[in-house]
Amino acid sequence: MRRRDFLKGGSLAFGGLLLTPIGTKANIIKEEFGKKKAKNIIFMVSDGMSAGTLNMADIYSRRKLGRPSHWISLYEDNLAQRGLMDMASANSIVTDSAAASSSWGGGHRVNNGSINIGANGEEYLPILQKFKKAGKKVGCVTTVPITHATPAGFSVFTKNRNSQEEIASLYSELGFDVMMGGGHKYFDAAQRKDKKDLYSVFRNKGYAVARNKAEMNAAPQNKPLLATFDEDGLPYSTDQFSSSFIKNNIPTLAEMTSKAINLMKDHKEGFVMQVEAGKVDWAAHGNDIAGLLYDQLAFDDALKVALDFAKKDGNTLVVITSDHGNANPGLIYGKEVNNNFDRIQKFSQTNEWILQGIQASDSISTIKDRIAQANAGIKITDEQAKEILSFYSKAKREDGIYNPRHLPFKLLSQIQQEFTSVGWISMDHSADYTELAMYGPGSDQMKPFMKNTDIHTFLLKAAQVENKF
Amino acid sequence: MRRRDFLKGGSLAFGGLLLTPIGTKANIIKEEFGKKKAKNIIFMVSDGMSAGTLNMADIYSRRKLGRPSHWISLYEDNLAQRGLMDMASANSIVTDSAAASSSWGGGHRVNNGSINIGANGEEYLPILQKFKKAGKKVGCVTTVPITHATPAGFSVFTKNRNSQEEIASLYSELGFDVMMGGGHKYFDAAQRKDKKDLYSVFRNKGYAVARNKAEMNAAPQNKPLLATFDEDGLPYSTDQFSSSFIKNNIPTLAEMTSKAINLMKDHKEGFVMQVEAGKVDWAAHGNDIAGLLYDQLAFDDALKVALDFAKKDGNTLVVITSDHGNANPGLIYGKEVNNNFDRIQKFSQTNEWILQGIQASDSISTIKDRIAQANAGIKITDEQAKEILSFYSKAKREDGIYNPRHLPFKLLSQIQQEFTSVGWISMDHSADYTELAMYGPGSDQMKPFMKNTDIHTFLLKAAQVENKF
Repeated sequence: MRRRDFLKGGSLAFGGLLLTPIGTKANIIKEEFGKKKAKNIIFMVSDGMSAGTLNMADIYSRRKLGRPSHWISLYEDNLAQRGLMDMASANSIVTDSAAASSSWGGGHRVNNGSINIGANGEEYLPILQKFKKAGKKVGCVTTVPITHATPAGFSVFTKNRNSQEEIASLYSELGFDVMMGGGHKYFDAAQRKDKKDLYSVFRNKGYAVARNKAEMNAAPQNKPLLATFDEDGLPYSTDQFSSSFIKNNIPTLAEMTSKAINLMKDHKEGFVMQVEAGKVDWAAHGNDIAGLLYDQLAFDDALKVALDFAKKDGNTLVVITSDHGNANPGLIYGKEVNNNFDRIQKFSQTNEWILQGIQASDSISTIKDRIAQANAGIKITDEQAKEILSFYSKAKREDGIYNPRHLPFKLLSQIQQEFTSVGWISMDHSADYTELAMYGPGSDQMKPFMKNTDIHTFLLKAAQVENKF
Repeated sequence: MRRRDFLKGGSLAFGGLLLTPIGTKANIIKEEFGKKKAKNIIFMVSDGMSAGTLNMADIYSRRKLGRPSHWISLYEDNLAQRGLMDMASANSIVTDSAAASSSWGGGHRVNNGSINIGANGEEYLPILQKFKKAGKKVGCVTTVPITHATPAGFSVFTKNRNSQEEIASLYSELGFDVMMGGGHKYFDAAQRKDKKDLYSVFRNKGYAVARNKAEMNAAPQNKPLLATFDEDGLPYSTDQFSSSFIKNNIPTLAEMTSKAINLMKDHKEGFVMQVEAGKVDWAAHGNDIAGLLYDQLAFDDALKVALDFAKKDGNTLVVITSDHGNANPGLIYGKEVNNNFDRIQKFSQTNEWILQGIQASDSISTIKDRIAQANAGIKITDEQAKEILSFYSKAKREDGIYNPRHLPFKLLSQIQQEFTSVGWISMDHSADYTELAMYGPGSDQMKPFMKNTDIHTFLLKAAQVENKF
């Protein structure tokens, strides 16, 4: 350690003790990590997680599971640093996921919709490419297509986040070590516009390809892995619980995280990976409480996998955050709020499942039964069922970013509010600063308020990788 | 300092240096305060402040004033500890302000509506009475009646928060040093049920009484002060800007805070005070963005007064928090969000002002003009104006905790959303964990997640006051 580095932290190491002159401000909190290098980094993103989403998952954990969430545990045990992060994009107070991930991944604010391409065409090299060049293994894991905005922002630059087939092609050139999630259709020759079989391209470059949980588990240690478990996004956790087919074939985010860590952890130079709970955002767009809550809890389980590894390893920085708020859900004051929130413990299906399964020809009682089945027996009125049904004859339509069939997601959540006490401000992203937590070497340098673009340099510094690329 | 206290922090003080064994986790961040005692405590509460309220005030500050909010500055400058606080009451995930303030003030969770009285009639001695007995000066400052739930929870116990006349009587027995806010009608002989002139009672006990800003400024150093500047809550900051009568007669929260500090700061044993921005909560109940944003900014100005004093003084712990979320407001994604949010910079009146000033006999164009005047020229439609007007003929009514005339607060905020991009989940409190920040001696002992009731002991410990009362 050079003397300059040494003094920066405001501390002097001396015979195994840290000597801090009283009257100076040392940035160090977790002395156990001192000036240690972050050999590995696990960057955990719950996409579109408002403060209320984090809080509800913790309240659920305490009331149902009898323990805090793993995220809040970190705070309760005083193990993590906490911060707020300003996620604005170049052109808006309210970012989209592409600009958000780019701000971290490329270190620059870009316009919404763009992936690491500036307003004047500047191309910003994404952080996983930098870490790869520095000799580390790198990868991404997500519950949405692996070509989606959040993993893409750490991996590539491209003008439009929606060009997911192109993003899949770009991935085939990167030589990354693990790419796992949904998005089969962007790799599949039969579904791609250029009819190119991208899986063959990856296989020819030495990749193992997995299309289900068994294949993922069987993927060998000595090969990079591409895995796509579904056509587009993976099923919601809630719907996963109630389908043994899904359960047997599609891994949870925690299982994917565990596999990815195992594939990379023995690499001498370390690894850097991003893990995304992408469907927390989709559920918020749908005001879908069962989707939101259980996918946030699935994220929390994946977080435990990362933290367990990091605690044992001692050389791993875990960054935990979200890219933006979405719909700002919250439990609303009222006599029934405790009972209503606990009712959600018994919800067995998402609103996505409820609404996608309704036909224009269904009867009122079919609608009522379907909702009762999914939502712990709640009884909606005939008038409410009729109004839901009216959306299927195309008499009415609701728009929304993940709602191509114009189904009544908003209406359903408004009907449910009486039974759940959950409210939403909208069906879209919010400007809220996001929660940021860090555990492990480097975390002591975190400030309680950070700008999204500062994360880029922060990660390189924590890993002591020179930003020369 | 006894050795036991000494070791608790995980550090050894040695010749002006702190020695922290590597491998242990010291709780100390702000070494400048070390084990220093908090001689004074300023407890700052923005009542009903959701995460979005804090964030919007910061975004506003940056865009309009060219600087961060004072609260976020503390984080940016790495001067404060950050935490989340679980504010649940004894009987609900979602607290009211009475149970919330009681949890801090009395150290116990009580049912919503109660002030420091347990479910079985237990009476919990409030913290300002404890500090008073320990020899400190104590006081409360607020923008709502000084008899309202938040100051009351630090001061008295009583079964029902609504018995504000009784609370005023209880105050007259306490001998507190500063009580300042609204609520004239609870002290006024002409308006009290018992026709008692409480002001005389206070004067006979040696208090100075102030009813306007000049009287407050003139209040002498050697007397305790009771001040009530309005019948009930004080006017919103927004409405204050546009009325020179209000501006000249009613002090801002920052001015009250400054006066209260000046009255108590020279006391040998120190002082403890609570400062509440109570109308942030009222504005959230009304989904009133101009009310909310400018009262949060007024809180931020008061925070600066407290911080400036604490920084200079060096012996003052400043605790900054909220008692619960309310309405979870947020800026919603969309092309116009930047322009819409900036438009609020030019709002000159609250929705309270708009709606209270409308008469059933008003014309459509009067309504439209009134809203345009208050809201930077926005143009609502004739149909929207008609719908607003329909609430005044009693054809329609909206309920709400601070809405006795059943005026269309919700409707107006829905109409405004097109022009402001601000959404709300409800017109009531939410279960969200609240933001907690601390600066000054003792803050190093704060954990990033705290239970509301822990604050009670925390404050006594920070001040090194034995909890023997």
